[in-house]
Amino acid sequence: MPEDRIEAGIEADVDALSAAAASRPRTPRERARAQTVADIVRLGREHLALHGAAALSLRAVARDLGVVSSAVYRYVENREELLTLLLIDAYNELGDEVDAAVGAVPEADFDGRFAALGRAVREWALREPSRYALLFGSPVPGYRAPAERTTGPGTRVIIALIGILDGAFRAGRLAATGRRSPAVAAGLAGDLAKIRAEFGLAVPDDLLARGTLAWTSLFGAVSFEVFGQYGPDTFTAREELFAHHLAVLADVAGLPAAGAAV
Amino acid sequence: MPEDRIEAGIEADVDALSAAAASRPRTPRERARAQTVADIVRLGREHLALHGAAALSLRAVARDLGVVSSAVYRYVENREELLTLLLIDAYNELGDEVDAAVGAVPEADFDGRFAALGRAVREWALREPSRYALLFGSPVPGYRAPAERTTGPGTRVIIALIGILDGAFRAGRLAATGRRSPAVAAGLAGDLAKIRAEFGLAVPDDLLARGTLAWTSLFGAVSFEVFGQYGPDTFTAREELFAHHLAVLADVAGLPAAGAAV
Repeated sequence: MPEDRIEAGIEADVDALSAAAASRPRTPRERARAQTVADIVRLGREHLALHGAAALSLRAVARDLGVVSSAVYRYVENREELLTLLLIDAYNELGDEVDAAVGAVPEADFDGRFAALGRAVREWALREPSRYALLFGSPVPGYRAPAERTTGPGTRVIIALIGILDGAFRAGRLAATGRRSPAVAAGLAGDLAKIRAEFGLAVPDDLLARGTLAWTSLFGAVSFEVFGQYGPDTFTAREELFAHHLAVLADVAGLPAAGAAV
Repeated sequence: MPEDRIEAGIEADVDALSAAAASRPRTPRERARAQTVADIVRLGREHLALHGAAALSLRAVARDLGVVSSAVYRYVENREELLTLLLIDAYNELGDEVDAAVGAVPEADFDGRFAALGRAVREWALREPSRYALLFGSPVPGYRAPAERTTGPGTRVIIALIGILDGAFRAGRLAATGRRSPAVAAGLAGDLAKIRAEFGLAVPDDLLARGTLAWTSLFGAVSFEVFGQYGPDTFTAREELFAHHLAVLADVAGLPAAGAAV
């Protein structure tokens, strides 16, 4: 990705982040603090793009911010906290883009919403490869995300996807396809029942397992493209390949093509 | 993963690597050199498990080897070369395990071979999470794998998979399934034609695109499990979930269940 595109992306994002941060703090002091945290996150993104998550250093971010590291720790406690802020920031940006793309398609067009979700994930990942890698790539050695803060932002895409599939099922528009009806073993059925209860879903076991596969497969295809697994020239028509994949994955999930009978 | 399992895995692997390295060198001096390179790779694996690929340091490996860094550079030129050795080593171990698993199933049992391949990838990934992350996780900032050395080892799994699917097609046992026949656009058809020519395949466009999706989806499911995307307790019956996924993916690829008519 050309550096000016990275720069432009970062600038646009930081504006949004600063605006969001500035809308809450009440006093000038709180505003200044929110602005400094936003600056640290912005620099953190740049370091992420240059060095990767594993080599992220709060001390180096402080240097770029022009302050001594003891000063930066007043705003962001440690490297783990910076990673957490970057995770939440990236998950929410991805979640916002997915929600906007899905929301632009009529609610009853389940197939259209599924495709819009998939394309939004891919487009964000191609535009933000290092942030995508932070979310969906190799775990960062020594770092464990605090579930109570990251699970909400981190489950936005799967919740949007499962919402589409559950809506389609309730509308009588979701049915397993293909030549196989793999059995759902007892342990898996237990996991799926818990998920169904937690999210108030109606979609039955086999279709919920298929939805899970459509979810991991979507990210599998995006990761292979973004992480360079296709090699430099094996697939040149990547958008066409992805469109084919999305159509097959909609079928895996049990969604008929728009207009088709179930 | 318990540390003793990591240790045991590393020891077994290093024995194999040392044996392979020792079978080629002729002179005592060449043997000593091969042994030192094998030691460096073994230590590199340990550092990979502890610090991740992005933070891998040849200097730190030299320290653990008990030599000054100027000495280590006589065996492994630089950090990039160490990463390349670790990539080739891991790709080949994965390739060997996949080949062994596939080879243990009769050639005409295409469905059984597909499932054996998928299980072998998952088992290796769960046993070797940091090496799996090196191969299929986030790109290492600043490192570019030398294609002329890594493409061979790096394509062993996809070549094994495509061999199974092409064999099934030639035996009249491969057919697209599901309710959709997504069009293969012109650019994608061009890419697929090149792949078909390069590997001497007979399998037509739609099925080759579906095989590609089965490949990326297999790794998508494994990556989500190994990289912790399922969370600590959402899916407890992970082997059952994976078995369900493999059955659906065989269907995606166009393989009928063993014994079923196409």
